[in-house]
Amino acid sequence: MTRKSTAISAPNIALLKYWGKKDDLLKIALNDSISITLDENVLRSKTTIEILDSFGADEIGLNGKKVNDEKINEWLMLVRKRLLKKYPVLKNKIKIESENNFPTSTGIASSASGFCALATALCACLGIEKREEMSRIARLGSGSASRSVYGGFVQWKAGTNTENSFAVQIKPKEHWDDIYDVIAVVDEGIKKVSSKDGMEKTVRSSRLMHCRLAEIKKRRVRMLRAIGKRDFDSLAIEMMRDSNQMHATMLDSWPPIFYMNDVSREIVYSVHETNLNGIVAGYTFDAGPNAHVICQKKNLEKVKGMLLGIKGVSRLIVSGVGNGSKVVK
Amino acid sequence: MTRKSTAISAPNIALLKYWGKKDDLLKIALNDSISITLDENVLRSKTTIEILDSFGADEIGLNGKKVNDEKINEWLMLVRKRLLKKYPVLKNKIKIESENNFPTSTGIASSASGFCALATALCACLGIEKREEMSRIARLGSGSASRSVYGGFVQWKAGTNTENSFAVQIKPKEHWDDIYDVIAVVDEGIKKVSSKDGMEKTVRSSRLMHCRLAEIKKRRVRMLRAIGKRDFDSLAIEMMRDSNQMHATMLDSWPPIFYMNDVSREIVYSVHETNLNGIVAGYTFDAGPNAHVICQKKNLEKVKGMLLGIKGVSRLIVSGVGNGSKVVK
Repeated sequence: MTRKSTAISAPNIALLKYWGKKDDLLKIALNDSISITLDENVLRSKTTIEILDSFGADEIGLNGKKVNDEKINEWLMLVRKRLLKKYPVLKNKIKIESENNFPTSTGIASSASGFCALATALCACLGIEKREEMSRIARLGSGSASRSVYGGFVQWKAGTNTENSFAVQIKPKEHWDDIYDVIAVVDEGIKKVSSKDGMEKTVRSSRLMHCRLAEIKKRRVRMLRAIGKRDFDSLAIEMMRDSNQMHATMLDSWPPIFYMNDVSREIVYSVHETNLNGIVAGYTFDAGPNAHVICQKKNLEKVKGMLLGIKGVSRLIVSGVGNGSKVVK
Repeated sequence: MTRKSTAISAPNIALLKYWGKKDDLLKIALNDSISITLDENVLRSKTTIEILDSFGADEIGLNGKKVNDEKINEWLMLVRKRLLKKYPVLKNKIKIESENNFPTSTGIASSASGFCALATALCACLGIEKREEMSRIARLGSGSASRSVYGGFVQWKAGTNTENSFAVQIKPKEHWDDIYDVIAVVDEGIKKVSSKDGMEKTVRSSRLMHCRLAEIKKRRVRMLRAIGKRDFDSLAIEMMRDSNQMHATMLDSWPPIFYMNDVSREIVYSVHETNLNGIVAGYTFDAGPNAHVICQKKNLEKVKGMLLGIKGVSRLIVSGVGNGSKVVK
């Protein structure tokens, strides 16, 4: 009796950033983070998991191609370690087929949506219904994946161990659904450091990191308040300052890490210029040059026009707030 | 009886950076800084001061053109406040004529060499011979000018007030004279924030600044030791990390300040690549995209070749260690 499930999940964009782990293997973050889950109708990973009746080497397919994916192998190992006693069927061969509806070359992190869809499908196979546990299982693949299981506004409580490190929903999509993420896809021309390697380097070498961790604790409170009150101005300022500060600790790492480039800087300048007579938008940058420019629906056209006027922005992807991961089959 | 003197001074390049003041008017730095004075035969400001017999509005000429320079006016005001009692002749009209042998468009800070030459010429007019006092007077024009009065390796002791804030020589040029600064002039394409405005912004808004100040105290000790022992490897690492950390606090300022651009980043990557099998060079960046790449004479050609291979580097200026400011007439 084969168990088989398919789930979809959207990426999420962190407004309070996660960059650095207490535990590299179990992906336990150094600090709480806050994100918006994006719209699964715009950007999504779709993953099918099959737990076969037979034994044998697992099989992984990505976008229709058979691959040997180290991160998924590690995730399967960690999942079995966690769940095998309760679910002996996990001894069996597992087949995974995963695909993204967005090209990986756009620089949009697919690991959050990918591992969240994987965790959601696996939980369906095993009959696990608690979202908290789904979040823990997603986290074992990629820290930020822990947040994509919920829709709306989400907080990953860093915790101190594998049990108390999981995400919770702050507010559902309905609380504040006129928020949009305009992703400005920027041509990359600079070598990249993987997020995993980058954050290990920052934790190990940046002398500014403990100042940042102290600051995050305070910013977290302000950001939760801004979300609760639907105070866009405060939210935008906090997200921009947090993004800048994370990139500052990257630059303070040794050797230094740069993810933003001249086009990213032009976007930063343009947003600040647009905000001169009142906050219109906020930017945030992950481990790459692409900008996520967050705004309210009423300013969407203005923000799109501003971004399309910047040389080096190759295209825009616009996403509203999403509903979180779900089983589709 | 007109008093008239002409002095020259070279810029200096800080290896331990000054970015932030305790006192904006009197230019009292938040932290000690360490620099190398550049070769006055390569880069220099030349300034003539004339204290006339008559009264009247001061006259300032820059590179042959009559100007109304706010910074020089402020300096004259501060100098008179400090010295008028002892030197009543300062009531009289002052004529200043200043010129640089390098175009200001290269982005090399001319305020350090300019104000140091001014202070040196003024001290000659008044018969002030103590270098410490010359350093204080230069500081009143531009903080970093306090360091250019000495040759070789120099430390500006930040102090707490206008009396105990001045530079001293750590080691003369002869101590370690095979050190070179290869300045890679980078085409600028991004708006600039003046150093004065930039550092005020950083002090006011960067939450990482107090971490940096704590780090500088420790780095200062390591850097002085490296200079004392002529330990180039340690010196290069300390200077690179200090420069990166200063630019990190700039990025953490609000709104953020960027001085480095994509070409600067390519230079950083190239230096790290060149250093993979042993330290060859160290970089440091002031408030602009130009790189100062410091190396020993034996590696000068290698470093020049590396920098000339980077797209966006428009030219190189090579300077050894200089002798400090001096009166020439």
